[in-house]
Amino acid sequence: MRKVSVGFLGCGNIGCGVWKLLQEFKADILHRADVEFDVKKILVRDVTKKRDQVIPAELLTTDPAQITDDPAIEMVLEFMGGEEPATRYMVRALEMGKTVVTANKMALALNWHILQEAAEKHHSGLYYEAAVCGAIPIIRTTIDSLQANRIEEMMGIVNGTTNYILTRMSQEGSDYADVLSDAQRLGLAEPDPTSDVEGFDAAYKLSILSSLAFHARVPFDVIYRQGITQVSATDIAFGKELGYTLKLLAIAKRAGNVIDARVHPTFIPDDHPLASVNGSFNAIFLHGHACDDMMLFGRGAGSAPTASAVVGDMLYAVSRDTPRYPTFHNANTLSDGLTVTDDWHCAFYVRLNASDRPGVLAHITACLGKEGISIRNLMQRDAVDGHAQIVLITHDAGECAINKALKAIASSDVQVESMIRVER
Amino acid sequence: MRKVSVGFLGCGNIGCGVWKLLQEFKADILHRADVEFDVKKILVRDVTKKRDQVIPAELLTTDPAQITDDPAIEMVLEFMGGEEPATRYMVRALEMGKTVVTANKMALALNWHILQEAAEKHHSGLYYEAAVCGAIPIIRTTIDSLQANRIEEMMGIVNGTTNYILTRMSQEGSDYADVLSDAQRLGLAEPDPTSDVEGFDAAYKLSILSSLAFHARVPFDVIYRQGITQVSATDIAFGKELGYTLKLLAIAKRAGNVIDARVHPTFIPDDHPLASVNGSFNAIFLHGHACDDMMLFGRGAGSAPTASAVVGDMLYAVSRDTPRYPTFHNANTLSDGLTVTDDWHCAFYVRLNASDRPGVLAHITACLGKEGISIRNLMQRDAVDGHAQIVLITHDAGECAINKALKAIASSDVQVESMIRVER
Repeated sequence: MRKVSVGFLGCGNIGCGVWKLLQEFKADILHRADVEFDVKKILVRDVTKKRDQVIPAELLTTDPAQITDDPAIEMVLEFMGGEEPATRYMVRALEMGKTVVTANKMALALNWHILQEAAEKHHSGLYYEAAVCGAIPIIRTTIDSLQANRIEEMMGIVNGTTNYILTRMSQEGSDYADVLSDAQRLGLAEPDPTSDVEGFDAAYKLSILSSLAFHARVPFDVIYRQGITQVSATDIAFGKELGYTLKLLAIAKRAGNVIDARVHPTFIPDDHPLASVNGSFNAIFLHGHACDDMMLFGRGAGSAPTASAVVGDMLYAVSRDTPRYPTFHNANTLSDGLTVTDDWHCAFYVRLNASDRPGVLAHITACLGKEGISIRNLMQRDAVDGHAQIVLITHDAGECAINKALKAIASSDVQVESMIRVER
Repeated sequence: MRKVSVGFLGCGNIGCGVWKLLQEFKADILHRADVEFDVKKILVRDVTKKRDQVIPAELLTTDPAQITDDPAIEMVLEFMGGEEPATRYMVRALEMGKTVVTANKMALALNWHILQEAAEKHHSGLYYEAAVCGAIPIIRTTIDSLQANRIEEMMGIVNGTTNYILTRMSQEGSDYADVLSDAQRLGLAEPDPTSDVEGFDAAYKLSILSSLAFHARVPFDVIYRQGITQVSATDIAFGKELGYTLKLLAIAKRAGNVIDARVHPTFIPDDHPLASVNGSFNAIFLHGHACDDMMLFGRGAGSAPTASAVVGDMLYAVSRDTPRYPTFHNANTLSDGLTVTDDWHCAFYVRLNASDRPGVLAHITACLGKEGISIRNLMQRDAVDGHAQIVLITHDAGECAINKALKAIASSDVQVESMIRVER
């Protein structure tokens, strides 16, 4: 039996979940892996705070060095969230030769190069399954199981809060603001929801996932990002009528050495495997040149599912004699030889408010035609007060072309109400 | 750079897929893992046979010892299928200290104890991701990522042929025999389809999956098995009307030390994640005490997807210094302390053909009531020739109770046309 001394950095929701799982699953862990995890110290902000779990007072400390610098601690689990001081503490632990297991997507996405450099230099293990989509084993699948694949595409519902909001908007026909405040009341959205609803959280995760999928660093700041705050019940309803479901997707595609990486509201056909991923569930759909289509679905957040990933990483770490690191170089810039395009190709949903006059539709189709964009579906609603709603879905076209066409379409007679990208 | 010498046992569809992937992905494999796989010998039945891939003639042999006994070969890939001689050759390779990667569910399910004993004794690696559901990383997910879970339930669509047949029967309202012969014509079903349509293939896979999930050996012969040959278009249509989709599911559940493991046609609600897994796709839905619900979806067969799993295993094997083995003991019997029940609990769909006479429905409900079974849905169709179709779905009940009730129901006035289990 091997005994591994563990320190926690942070003990909120996730930390308490890991504590609980380590306690209740002690016998199984011993049976399965012949290992015992012994929690030695837990860094907290306030030792007197009441927690979900009963944790012996002598384990709690407000001094990070008691964890990062104690040679008796072999493994450090980081649950603080945020970029700093989490990154600094993790670097210190890695420099001390400790294995680090983190659930912190922001610190990893922004400071991966710093963390990995410290890990490689000191032969320390660095594990982060819990940083992306909770219990879903997308990290391990990408780096272990799909090693023999050129992954050409990843599309994920990687943020539970926005998926919950969009699911309810779709099912109830409700407006964004109403569902958001309801979600906040239920504790499913933060009091300041910016990170979720503006797509920051999804972009951190996409940076991590696409870097691993493409074996090349795709830093956070090259990712196009558009949140769900402008999504309207009207567009969701029109999409439904046309057979599409609206999701906030994190998308990364690679064709040769050109990639696109983007987070935005996206219509997908109702029969796409991602379309039925509802509520706070997460899922990642991907396509590899050998494995073909694949999807992983599960709980992307929550105390127990995240603990499942953390303790899974702990067991994986102790089962390996030597750590392994991604092959991309240690910098926070796009890997050499790759370029990021903002002129990706997909279909587009467009809603227009147009004067009910002859010639308006001809103007619209001419503007699209000039950019080489053809129409797959068009729907016109009866005019009210001399204005008609025109909804159309294009065939595949370029992002730049559609923007140019929409600029040309906009006139005193036609307002562009919304444009939403459509993936298949 | 590390060079690993490889031998193939078999070179049909899967072997050719692996050969192709190893050739075309050579540079990527070298870049990603700093390893080169060098195929030294390939066992075939007929060296003159034409293959999909151009393979140098000097690599082909009909003598298995040239692979299993050559000390220069480090890794043996087995694609022969069938129980023997595949098991014998793999055992020999393991005894010679070689790493074995197999895609052979039948040999593994039936002879795991023999293979693992040889592997452990000689510290040889034994990998089998490709044996279950092609590219879907369900083996690795179960043994690595979900180590910190007590998996309580697994339900899988693990056979593409039967899923293709049921999907078409459902979409077209066609009969089993018609779709089967069409599938055979298209090469999607074998000339002798027994292994697929009678559920043998699914039961081999379930034996492997449930053994790993429960950390206990669940041998093939304790698995209840019912194929799809008796499935009728009528039942699929009635199920549809009630909001259910018919799938051949491989199901394993554990409650304490009692398990049930079974393969049979199953109705699931249309909004269940497995319900929309159509055509030849596979998917495994599972529930762990920490991870909650999870589903993995993808290509369960085919040359390239299976090669993705095989080469993934090869890379995984070389990344590990020491092999790891499942914790269950080396025998082909149910692990100590566990019992298998055939009195599982689920809901039941029942279709009856009854005389259109007063008192018949009272008789039916009385028989169910006597066994403590209550009805969730009941549908009665207008009588033709004095006979009415009665379709009902029960609340959860025991398998033994429903069988007892159906025996009591059957009379000169009522024929039991079908009983199909319903899972949620």
